[in-house]
Amino acid sequence: MVNCAIIGYGYWGPNLVRNFSSATNSKVHTVADLRPERLAVVSRTYPGINVTSDIDSIWSNPEIDAVIIATPVFTHFDLAKRALEAGKHVLLEKPMTDTVAHAMELIELSKKAGRTLMVDHTFLYTSAVQKMKDLITSGEIGKVKYFDSTRINLGLIQQDVNVLWDLAPHDISILDYLIDEKPVSVQATGVSHIHNGIENIAYLTVNYANDFIGHFHCSWSSPVKIRMMLLGGDKKMVVFNDMEPTEKIRIYDTAHTVNTDEEKRRVLVDYRVGDVFIPKLEMREALGGMANDFINSIQNGTKPIANYESGLNTIKILEAAQISIKENGREVML
Amino acid sequence: MVNCAIIGYGYWGPNLVRNFSSATNSKVHTVADLRPERLAVVSRTYPGINVTSDIDSIWSNPEIDAVIIATPVFTHFDLAKRALEAGKHVLLEKPMTDTVAHAMELIELSKKAGRTLMVDHTFLYTSAVQKMKDLITSGEIGKVKYFDSTRINLGLIQQDVNVLWDLAPHDISILDYLIDEKPVSVQATGVSHIHNGIENIAYLTVNYANDFIGHFHCSWSSPVKIRMMLLGGDKKMVVFNDMEPTEKIRIYDTAHTVNTDEEKRRVLVDYRVGDVFIPKLEMREALGGMANDFINSIQNGTKPIANYESGLNTIKILEAAQISIKENGREVML
Amino acid sequence: MVNCAIIGYGYWGPNLVRNFSSATNSKVHTVADLRPERLAVVSRTYPGINVTSDIDSIWSNPEIDAVIIATPVFTHFDLAKRALEAGKHVLLEKPMTDTVAHAMELIELSKKAGRTLMVDHTFLYTSAVQKMKDLITSGEIGKVKYFDSTRINLGLIQQDVNVLWDLAPHDISILDYLIDEKPVSVQATGVSHIHNGIENIAYLTVNYANDFIGHFHCSWSSPVKIRMMLLGGDKKMVVFNDMEPTEKIRIYDTAHTVNTDEEKRRVLVDYRVGDVFIPKLEMREALGGMANDFINSIQNGTKPIANYESGLNTIKILEAAQISIKENGREVML
Amino acid sequence: MVNCAIIGYGYWGPNLVRNFSSATNSKVHTVADLRPERLAVVSRTYPGINVTSDIDSIWSNPEIDAVIIATPVFTHFDLAKRALEAGKHVLLEKPMTDTVAHAMELIELSKKAGRTLMVDHTFLYTSAVQKMKDLITSGEIGKVKYFDSTRINLGLIQQDVNVLWDLAPHDISILDYLIDEKPVSVQATGVSHIHNGIENIAYLTVNYANDFIGHFHCSWSSPVKIRMMLLGGDKKMVVFNDMEPTEKIRIYDTAHTVNTDEEKRRVLVDYRVGDVFIPKLEMREALGGMANDFINSIQNGTKPIANYESGLNTIKILEAAQISIKENGREVML
Repeated sequence: MVNCAIIGYGYWGPNLVRNFSSATNSKVHTVADLRPERLAVVSRTYPGINVTSDIDSIWSNPEIDAVIIATPVFTHFDLAKRALEAGKHVLLEKPMTDTVAHAMELIELSKKAGRTLMVDHTFLYTSAVQKMKDLITSGEIGKVKYFDSTRINLGLIQQDVNVLWDLAPHDISILDYLIDEKPVSVQATGVSHIHNGIENIAYLTVNYANDFIGHFHCSWSSPVKIRMMLLGGDKKMVVFNDMEPTEKIRIYDTAHTVNTDEEKRRVLVDYRVGDVFIPKLEMREALGGMANDFINSIQNGTKPIANYESGLNTIKILEAAQISIKENGREVML
Repeated sequence: MVNCAIIGYGYWGPNLVRNFSSATNSKVHTVADLRPERLAVVSRTYPGINVTSDIDSIWSNPEIDAVIIATPVFTHFDLAKRALEAGKHVLLEKPMTDTVAHAMELIELSKKAGRTLMVDHTFLYTSAVQKMKDLITSGEIGKVKYFDSTRINLGLIQQDVNVLWDLAPHDISILDYLIDEKPVSVQATGVSHIHNGIENIAYLTVNYANDFIGHFHCSWSSPVKIRMMLLGGDKKMVVFNDMEPTEKIRIYDTAHTVNTDEEKRRVLVDYRVGDVFIPKLEMREALGGMANDFINSIQNGTKPIANYESGLNTIKILEAAQISIKENGREVML
Repeated sequence: MVNCAIIGYGYWGPNLVRNFSSATNSKVHTVADLRPERLAVVSRTYPGINVTSDIDSIWSNPEIDAVIIATPVFTHFDLAKRALEAGKHVLLEKPMTDTVAHAMELIELSKKAGRTLMVDHTFLYTSAVQKMKDLITSGEIGKVKYFDSTRINLGLIQQDVNVLWDLAPHDISILDYLIDEKPVSVQATGVSHIHNGIENIAYLTVNYANDFIGHFHCSWSSPVKIRMMLLGGDKKMVVFNDMEPTEKIRIYDTAHTVNTDEEKRRVLVDYRVGDVFIPKLEMREALGGMANDFINSIQNGTKPIANYESGLNTIKILEAAQISIKENGREVML
Repeated sequence: MVNCAIIGYGYWGPNLVRNFSSATNSKVHTVADLRPERLAVVSRTYPGINVTSDIDSIWSNPEIDAVIIATPVFTHFDLAKRALEAGKHVLLEKPMTDTVAHAMELIELSKKAGRTLMVDHTFLYTSAVQKMKDLITSGEIGKVKYFDSTRINLGLIQQDVNVLWDLAPHDISILDYLIDEKPVSVQATGVSHIHNGIENIAYLTVNYANDFIGHFHCSWSSPVKIRMMLLGGDKKMVVFNDMEPTEKIRIYDTAHTVNTDEEKRRVLVDYRVGDVFIPKLEMREALGGMANDFINSIQNGTKPIANYESGLNTIKILEAAQISIKENGREVML
């Protein structure tokens, strides 16, 4: 049994408590938060869980094996460092840290301490992303040529990080998970409609040594909520539309070659060359898979899917994107 | 009555013949094309129209008042120059020309000759774009903050121009029509999956002196056909979805301010703060409006909506985008 | 404080416990179920709630004020009768009872006992149905002419009741709530693809003295899940699409008169005569409103929205529909 | 070459002229209409076609081989009878005639005269309906259990026939084409919101000797335009959504058996048990296929798809439905 302490009981906290309560070999031992009213909510719903506003008491508590950090990103490094130094396993909410340097220091600490360090890239555990991974590794969609993600909605303006740091970690971690090649540079543009200069709309291109390209569109200022990824292979293409309740993944047969004039005319009219297939995906809560992966890594030493490299690679792109935006879209090498 | 000659009877030619046949005070006098089989189609369908494969015969024909040029873009300048020098009014298919210099020379020629020079930016004549213009000029949507366009589909790879030159003229001309401020710079990224280096996927950011931003995503390699524009004002936002048969324009009331924690929680859940309004738009063929605007300009000296400035401004952005793509996304001043 | 006992902890039970736990002045005192494993789930999640498999112990427990019955429909009458005779207030899951006679007997009992008797017609408490009611009572949509409901999906075949008894109570109770006139007859057709003769597809027409008509299409054998209601007024029409996450209600302006030939041609092309309006609806859990209405009725003697008349009227139509189906669609008077 | 005369140049007339002009071995010889302004439209667009307002001149003209009758339904019988008696082949717009007796008399006449008699059930020639037919005959969807059609929109109220006669012929002819068994009875309900008693909303059930069922919902009073057919087999089910531009046919794998409680819970959550497949359908104009089938039948004696039996079977159901509506939904035997 792994005893977990969850630090931070905000928007995501209840989901973490619920999933770490029901994960195999996992127990939520303590929830910590500086706000008494949030702790009161925990006590009312889960009388068996300890609550505390004294975060430091967690480090010294030998009953606690693992710490799940769900606080604002600028606090991640300090809290995770303290936890690792105290010999705890650590799960960080996304994004992993506020800088690449901080992420690298945590990784070194975790290696030295022999403790699991992982990032809650929940999406990697969805049936949809697992299906996309399968389609690539099986060769079904052929050589992958591009990845294009749109994650826009009417969102709450964050006060501390821009829209890329808020929304893009989901998509960047998926890109990192799906594509084995390493990106070489990024370019980003964006705009801030707020006085503090925090971008609420941003566009990010990720370049590779070969002709693969990644692109991300994030916005807090869209009247429509769109969650759409395009993954283009040279045999098939995949659309992951996360707004669809039961048809999240659509696979398009696009390998057909257009030769004759009559075929060209048809493509101009209907823009489809082949069949569409919508696989039945297993309905399951991705966060549960993430929780089990964390516990399993602690108990069995397995490498989790959302491992620290996934976290670090995501931060690298975000940090470079930030520089590029501020320097008018200059190409920034990774 | 304005006698028109249409040069080029390819994909778009039949639409031009049909609309210039039914426009007020307009007559299709001649259709010219180098391919006899295309001229045969014209003769069969419209026995009353002259056909010729001798383009030069048009310049010297005093019965012809106006020339409509629907040939590949690299031929636009030469043909339009010949036509203007022969005293004909000229309508060019989009994009106007292959370079800014060519566009400017044609504009000078048309001014000297006192002839109408216009570009077929058909979309400017749609009910949807007219509605968007009204929403801006009436102040209903407030100060406009961004314009975002996605025009992607599984398309035919062009051999001579990249995907921006093929698809973006529609959207850039709409941006130019809707927004009075002049753009100051562009950044563009893209990728070519074809041997000749022609980009089949491209992303373009257009910057302004104030905090307005424009963005364009064009692709010939998307399995889904998307034609969507977002126009964000500080009071309302507009979505123009051209794939919708009867609900092309949706107006979102987004001015509501989120203050309390409870309101914040709700925004996180449903991402909507206000009502949506879908105005009834008049069903009409945009190309007919364009044809009438051309004829009217010739007869009455009115300034058409899709005037040469619209054409030139579009080319300026395309030319700068081309440079930016080839220089790894460098900001290119306009 | 009203102490509630919930009998039956199946699919819907957890929702009842959660909502009666958080309703004002309400407390879940006991959960009863014959299956020990279901009671174990309750104890694990809610350590403070009593559990029992001895249903009869509820009647004699003076601490229990109200009983919520969420068991198979054929048990409703006996349980509710026992509860009312023991002086408890009663909430029945839909449908109220298995026969009209049973419903009427319960109503008499509740009147004599001076106890609240109510049916969980949850949908009446949704923002969408409340909006539809407002649109009718305010006169905004004009005189209502028809109500058409489709509730179809790939469902589990029930072994005891047909698809109308399973799915239609939602829609019939909405019809009863929205329309003041009383129906005069029904006709129903259907088919059973199962050996026991239970209909898995059924169609139901409800007739009125005036020219209003109601229609219901229910199916457990549809590959697509549809939850759509049309409500036609002579000024406006409403579509309630419950599959839409945030745009459940759409209001169509349909009062425009088509006069000229040109207008007729346009209607043939686009089938729209006016604007569409999608009001922002409050996001709230309908079941919570139902729970509060029940508690409020007990404490203050108010008449609940989902009162016993709503329950009875729904059963009347279901019972008549059953007869009509078995007699080949014969009109059955109500 | 078959010389055709088209009688009636209303809404559908231009489509007929265009398709019979381009069909193989077909020529539009004459267009007849009582309205001079409609004939003027023909002459302007097709200078080579004769026009006449003297319908009777067609019968005696030996150059005319075939007559296409696109006039109001109550005139079909007289015109077709005259044509057959004059030895012409006859194509009737749907519905074939206004009564079963008239249809049967025309069939006898055509047999005696040895002339083709056919009905323009255009939908039978669509790729979508052909695909549905293939799915049935190949056995892919298993034994067919039901057919459910919804064809509703905001329509023009017809003055002479009710909504079933106007809209249902499309769907009834598809049912007749797809299903080999013969229907045994019908029940229909409906309502008229117009003074003349013509139903603008109607529901029709078609019963068979086995447990197959057909159902039709037609309305001129729906704010949304729906064109949806469900075809349920015991292995797979098909949805034909004619409002979809390129995904008209969706095939659902529904044969999976639900056994365990966990599987039941999942079905309750997502209502899907299998994959969905969207075949690429050929884009083609159905009316062209119909025209070629007519010409081919005339020249080669082949039996057309939309043959007179298809026409007669459709009328039989419509006539019985009319009786049923007027007798309050009584089951009417066929």
